[in-house]
Amino acid sequence: MTALKINKDRLWNSLMEMAKIGETPKGGVCRLALTDLDGQSRSLFKSWCEDAGMTVSVDQVGNIYARRPGRDASLPPVVTGSHLDSQPTGGRFDGVYGVLAGLEVVRSLNDNGIETDAPIEVAVWTNEEGSRFSPAMMGSGVFAGAFTLQEILDKTDEDGKRFGDELTAIGDAGDLDPNDHPMTAYFEAHIEQGPILEKEELPIGVVTGGQGQRWYEATVTGMESHAGPTPMPIRKDALVSASKLVQAVNRIGHDFAPNACTTVGHMQVRPNSRNVIPGEVFLTIDMRNPDDDTLSAMDAALRAAVSSIQEEDDVSIALEDFWYFAPTPFDETLLDRVRAGAKEHNLPNRDMVSGAGHDAVYVARKAPTAMIFVPCEDGISHNEVENATPEDIEAGCNVLCHAMMETAGWRQAGHNR
Amino acid sequence: MTALKINKDRLWNSLMEMAKIGETPKGGVCRLALTDLDGQSRSLFKSWCEDAGMTVSVDQVGNIYARRPGRDASLPPVVTGSHLDSQPTGGRFDGVYGVLAGLEVVRSLNDNGIETDAPIEVAVWTNEEGSRFSPAMMGSGVFAGAFTLQEILDKTDEDGKRFGDELTAIGDAGDLDPNDHPMTAYFEAHIEQGPILEKEELPIGVVTGGQGQRWYEATVTGMESHAGPTPMPIRKDALVSASKLVQAVNRIGHDFAPNACTTVGHMQVRPNSRNVIPGEVFLTIDMRNPDDDTLSAMDAALRAAVSSIQEEDDVSIALEDFWYFAPTPFDETLLDRVRAGAKEHNLPNRDMVSGAGHDAVYVARKAPTAMIFVPCEDGISHNEVENATPEDIEAGCNVLCHAMMETAGWRQAGHNR
Repeated sequence: MTALKINKDRLWNSLMEMAKIGETPKGGVCRLALTDLDGQSRSLFKSWCEDAGMTVSVDQVGNIYARRPGRDASLPPVVTGSHLDSQPTGGRFDGVYGVLAGLEVVRSLNDNGIETDAPIEVAVWTNEEGSRFSPAMMGSGVFAGAFTLQEILDKTDEDGKRFGDELTAIGDAGDLDPNDHPMTAYFEAHIEQGPILEKEELPIGVVTGGQGQRWYEATVTGMESHAGPTPMPIRKDALVSASKLVQAVNRIGHDFAPNACTTVGHMQVRPNSRNVIPGEVFLTIDMRNPDDDTLSAMDAALRAAVSSIQEEDDVSIALEDFWYFAPTPFDETLLDRVRAGAKEHNLPNRDMVSGAGHDAVYVARKAPTAMIFVPCEDGISHNEVENATPEDIEAGCNVLCHAMMETAGWRQAGHNR
Repeated sequence: MTALKINKDRLWNSLMEMAKIGETPKGGVCRLALTDLDGQSRSLFKSWCEDAGMTVSVDQVGNIYARRPGRDASLPPVVTGSHLDSQPTGGRFDGVYGVLAGLEVVRSLNDNGIETDAPIEVAVWTNEEGSRFSPAMMGSGVFAGAFTLQEILDKTDEDGKRFGDELTAIGDAGDLDPNDHPMTAYFEAHIEQGPILEKEELPIGVVTGGQGQRWYEATVTGMESHAGPTPMPIRKDALVSASKLVQAVNRIGHDFAPNACTTVGHMQVRPNSRNVIPGEVFLTIDMRNPDDDTLSAMDAALRAAVSSIQEEDDVSIALEDFWYFAPTPFDETLLDRVRAGAKEHNLPNRDMVSGAGHDAVYVARKAPTAMIFVPCEDGISHNEVENATPEDIEAGCNVLCHAMMETAGWRQAGHNR
């Protein structure tokens, strides 16, 4: 048979139908985790899965697995998925694309009478965004053992509402043990959330892994004084020193090209008054690299910069490690199947690293994993204007379908392969 | 006669007595303009003046003039003074020193049977600090014609209370026309509010003028995007560009040494989130120089820096003029009398410029003016820990007394001079 093609219009229409749940006036989506709207999106997904002949089960943290049986029930499933929750001003594709692409794969297998050896599952991970309940990626994190079930159930939102209670309220506190769900492989299709594919006019990104991340908090302490009567030579202006640190952090990102990313995203100046020399500046530093040794070298460069600014400016800089997330290389065999899928459909592609966090990064701790990116307009996500083309959405799903079929093993009903 | 010496202990005790009105647990003062506490401090000052044989009058904006008659009633008075209001967490010396040093001059003249040709007056300017009612230096500003009386009376505080009503409530809405108060000369003694005199171990600063000031607001607009998936080369990080601007502003301060001061005191990063590349940064710029041509050159250097950062980083920077205050050179004849006073009392001194705003800067628009600075501990003011030594407090008052006597013309009762 020629390369199996998924149904572009059906996938697009499902995305648009799902986007009505929590739709915002500007064309985005607000569907915070474990709200009634999140519950509605989960119910719609489950009903579509049942219509496609799948069996739906839910684990104790609310992760949904919709299963299409395989010919060999003893094989762990080949799984794909993502999340249905959104940012407060989120878009129509972030997360939901990975879920509905999985459903479309199953629907297309059904249409074409394809049987797989291993079962196929579509997963919905609970609370990927971390907007309502922090931190992010709770469902996949519990699955991977990064968090315990109990600590997550006890998390509260800003109104003091408990995760566990809210999960029960939407009817998705299931029975399955979230730590006991073996998989043959996991794939996740997602919009890139960055500008590279669009810029290079490539429909497919073969995601070779997740960036390692080091997050820091720095407090620069100088000496607060009057902007008028304090001569320049004796100032200890914390903002001047903090600005040097911002420059140094940015330089590190460029020095460790091409894959390093470095950002100071948050800064608080104290006392933050027009005519007072700042005495203290708090700032955050986010450094990312797919290679852990390189990330360590970036860490060393940061510490050297901090030391030299301290010495040069006679200020003190307290640098605290805030968070570390090791780089996550994805599975080479699965990546080859993604590349083969792109080739099968004549889709130009490139290898790339995922800069953002994804459920796949946690799942990779338990199962061979790969991700597929498709372009999004202007690289924008977490925004109501988030957009993608039906053609790119189709392309990613075709690649996903190919990679899953090859991984699960398949035959067309009535044929031997 | 040898140089007349003021009464060190009496001056110090008066300062400490006044500091009880609005005293804070940490040894500072909270006496916001036109509050009951401000009213109490004004009443205490008036009663002390009356005890010293002076006549007290109040103008329509609440400026108090306490007058000691001269031998020639046709001569306009030689005036000194400052303010009694404080910052919310203010100290015991800022402003009140200039007022009570004036009172001590009168008391000492009385003690020593000195008559002056011109009358001597001690002025209390209303709301110098500008903490409760903005802007600062309202009383002296109305006197100088910088503000109209009506616009000041109509100002409101954060609770919506009107300046004019609050002035009436404390009983200091006087009859005198604030624009009609001729002076032969004006002196103001003040703590330095900077570190220079203490550092150089000099008890007296001869203040040759007030800094010219240019204040700006700048908005740097880059492109907000995810810190993870956005490669360094295509970023437009508004904070990286804003940091360059902070560096450039600081460099200008050093380049135009020794008298330039440049400060970025306030910065607001948007969206100010740990893992989002800042899309916009708002910041304020404060540049000061005692010479207007130099200040203009600094302005040109700032505009050049803004242009080059815009071009280099492909961001946009909107630079707005926010406020301009021309340099205020003080009167050379009066400055010579201040220097002579320091010499008379063997007090090491230096010329310096006032970096902060003072009532004297407005008064100088209407009358020959000079200021005398004394050291304050660690250069700190606008803080409850603000401190000065009794010896320096005495020194400044001795110099003030000399300069006022020489300016007013004097003789000791029973002597011809």
